[in-house]
Amino acid sequence: MDPSESLESLFYPGTIAVIGASRKKGKIGNQVLRNLVYGGYECAIYPVNPKAEEILGLKSYPSVLDVPGMVDLAVIVVPARIVPHVLRECSQKGVRGVVIISSGFGEIGRTDLEDEVKRIAREGGMRIIGPNTVGIINTSIFMNASFVSTMPIPGEIAFITQSGALGEALIHWTAQEGLGLSKVASLGNKVDVDDADLIRYFLNEESVNVIVLYIESIRKGRKFMEAAKEVSKVKPIVAVKAGKSKAGQRATSSHTGSLAGEDRIYDAAFRQSGVIRANDTTELFDMAVALAQQPPAKGNRVAIVTNGGGAGVIAADICEENGIEVPGFRDELLERLRGLLPEIASPRNPVDILGDADYKRYRDTLDTVAGSDAVDGIIALHVQTALVDPVEIAEAIVEVDKAWGKPVVTGWIGGEGLREARHLLMEKKVPQYPSPKRACTAMKALIRQGELHGQ
Amino acid sequence: MDPSESLESLFYPGTIAVIGASRKKGKIGNQVLRNLVYGGYECAIYPVNPKAEEILGLKSYPSVLDVPGMVDLAVIVVPARIVPHVLRECSQKGVRGVVIISSGFGEIGRTDLEDEVKRIAREGGMRIIGPNTVGIINTSIFMNASFVSTMPIPGEIAFITQSGALGEALIHWTAQEGLGLSKVASLGNKVDVDDADLIRYFLNEESVNVIVLYIESIRKGRKFMEAAKEVSKVKPIVAVKAGKSKAGQRATSSHTGSLAGEDRIYDAAFRQSGVIRANDTTELFDMAVALAQQPPAKGNRVAIVTNGGGAGVIAADICEENGIEVPGFRDELLERLRGLLPEIASPRNPVDILGDADYKRYRDTLDTVAGSDAVDGIIALHVQTALVDPVEIAEAIVEVDKAWGKPVVTGWIGGEGLREARHLLMEKKVPQYPSPKRACTAMKALIRQGELHGQ
Repeated sequence: MDPSESLESLFYPGTIAVIGASRKKGKIGNQVLRNLVYGGYECAIYPVNPKAEEILGLKSYPSVLDVPGMVDLAVIVVPARIVPHVLRECSQKGVRGVVIISSGFGEIGRTDLEDEVKRIAREGGMRIIGPNTVGIINTSIFMNASFVSTMPIPGEIAFITQSGALGEALIHWTAQEGLGLSKVASLGNKVDVDDADLIRYFLNEESVNVIVLYIESIRKGRKFMEAAKEVSKVKPIVAVKAGKSKAGQRATSSHTGSLAGEDRIYDAAFRQSGVIRANDTTELFDMAVALAQQPPAKGNRVAIVTNGGGAGVIAADICEENGIEVPGFRDELLERLRGLLPEIASPRNPVDILGDADYKRYRDTLDTVAGSDAVDGIIALHVQTALVDPVEIAEAIVEVDKAWGKPVVTGWIGGEGLREARHLLMEKKVPQYPSPKRACTAMKALIRQGELHGQ
Repeated sequence: MDPSESLESLFYPGTIAVIGASRKKGKIGNQVLRNLVYGGYECAIYPVNPKAEEILGLKSYPSVLDVPGMVDLAVIVVPARIVPHVLRECSQKGVRGVVIISSGFGEIGRTDLEDEVKRIAREGGMRIIGPNTVGIINTSIFMNASFVSTMPIPGEIAFITQSGALGEALIHWTAQEGLGLSKVASLGNKVDVDDADLIRYFLNEESVNVIVLYIESIRKGRKFMEAAKEVSKVKPIVAVKAGKSKAGQRATSSHTGSLAGEDRIYDAAFRQSGVIRANDTTELFDMAVALAQQPPAKGNRVAIVTNGGGAGVIAADICEENGIEVPGFRDELLERLRGLLPEIASPRNPVDILGDADYKRYRDTLDTVAGSDAVDGIIALHVQTALVDPVEIAEAIVEVDKAWGKPVVTGWIGGEGLREARHLLMEKKVPQYPSPKRACTAMKALIRQGELHGQ
């Protein structure tokens, strides 16, 4: 069997048992069951708790062995010392995938318990995520097998995190930002399934277009690089590797119990395996959205089009700082733009099409620069003014997007008045950001993907 | 008379005439009147329009000369060619302050009209903002003498912008972000009042604690530096000067009609005059909030306290990149922290107090690090988890803030569940940001202010 196929029971189980399900609200064993029941997962869910008859309206079983029929996935929430026992029962039952949320293993020095878990899993042919994990989520089947109370918005991004707490917080954040996720996996102590396994698994998972990683340390470097190299050609991979600084490395080594490697080694490893590196979690997801929605850029020359001169200048500065070229246009292109624009507009790049720029002026300008062979990508900016309805600007951008096979990202400065325009872009899969800076970062990722993998 | 006193008629007029007020919704002359009437300004407002009897329920006058009694401030919205005429009438009427919103002057080559405006204003002893300005706002008296449809939230920041469109968009943005502004001035073509005049005026304006500038070019360098040097000692000044890059300079020179100076000259000028430089508009306001609410730092050594290890590591990386030291703690401090924290917490800096950290653990840890003489400032981070109510964490931070005379900034990762906690901090004037990165940038400004001006 293809090893990645065996992860199917984790992400697409037909039946799930929650071992350690609790009646008490606020307990993790209650939250996990609640998330499965109310998240929209439609297959069978079996609470396992010897002291309960029924939890959240579902019949409870004393042991997983008492559950009628097959159990594909077991989510374990019992105290650490009991985990080996229930895991043996899972093995006996023929469970294929296990998520061990329980903590109290290697992270507090109980490597003995962790080794026992590993042994039982191997003997039983079970795939394990955890222990000490927040859980996993698959929005394709509305399965929230975690204790994160927010169900992410369905989307195209797979999110793999080595930090449970940060992962949880980022899931809440993505929901608030309107960012869609396809799969989430909090790795915990990684007794079995690790980043590399998941990266390979997501290669063949249709719902996933981009993979994002929050990494603190990589133990099996070669395995990671081989998987990343193969997959990143097909599906972009973006990673934050925290711990660049001295203070950060001091913290990382204590936090995960493994020594953080020198940052430049990670840098080289990412480059060699085609992984794009982000500097923080906002960049991580900003880049991921762009990579999910736009083609990579064939080069690093961008055109900036803006109705606010200042926003264009800021974007040009940020581009240049990030190695993105904002080339001056040749005379021919300048002439064509001058033909379209009012006299006091500036056709030079950044192209300032003035505060009263409407649908037509945006549309014509964007079409003209997108058609130029001197331009590899477009950053369209809009500052909210009283003069124009931003929705018509969004419509102009949507129409130009996809027409030229070149990546388009957008940056918006303003308030509530931009909401509808930004929603339209989200729906039409044109990346939109609340500042020129974040739009530039997104373009950087599209250029980087092109450099690493061609188009 | 102190020249800055003469600006009083612009920001605290007892009566305002809107010359060119319009009945037609969507016209700028209507929007300006609407903003004054519905913004909450409580003194007399006189629409001036020879073709109207009444606008928005107010009696309209054929000319400013027909208005009964004094007019302190005139807001002019008539076509450029008529501006000299109405300005002469203003002069005759004894108007002291004029905001010329009308465009069509130097920015399209009509320097002749602009010179005429300048001459009339000087002869009449009137102070002019504009022409080609979005207008001015003073939230202290709920006066929105601009065509920006959003009334800013009252606050402590004065915002001076050389770009009208960007300024307008940023006003909308601040309102959405819950950021308070005291005064706003869009400078336009600066025939009279410029950045330096306003900086000096805000020195004695009690409602202003921090001044932020969006600058494209400075014409009178010495005047600006003298004003900034004097004022920044008392009230921090933060500036974005766009146009660092080649492409940016190309755009700036076309956009404002003046050559952008070499970036390093601006950099030196800001440093010498005590102005903190921000890289983009988000940084500009993030820094301003911190400077308005927290004391400058006496040095560059910060303690990072977090309930999510990963967030702490990211913050440490960003600090080090920005020249902020995250020192390892001495044994004595480590011992004290170990006494407060669970065994698997990490007392080293960044201090990881674990996902289940509650009010008491945050409170004790923050108090301990804030009391150390090895720490000049504190970055408190929180990642949203299911385990703790973030409001109690905010309460702990509020109690520690102000107690030690050291600056505190906070970063939050999560979603809707953080709303109440973040509101509490806003209310209690502890800066809060939606990412570790933005919190670090804010701390950088507090350190910079300390370096430039001492504490």
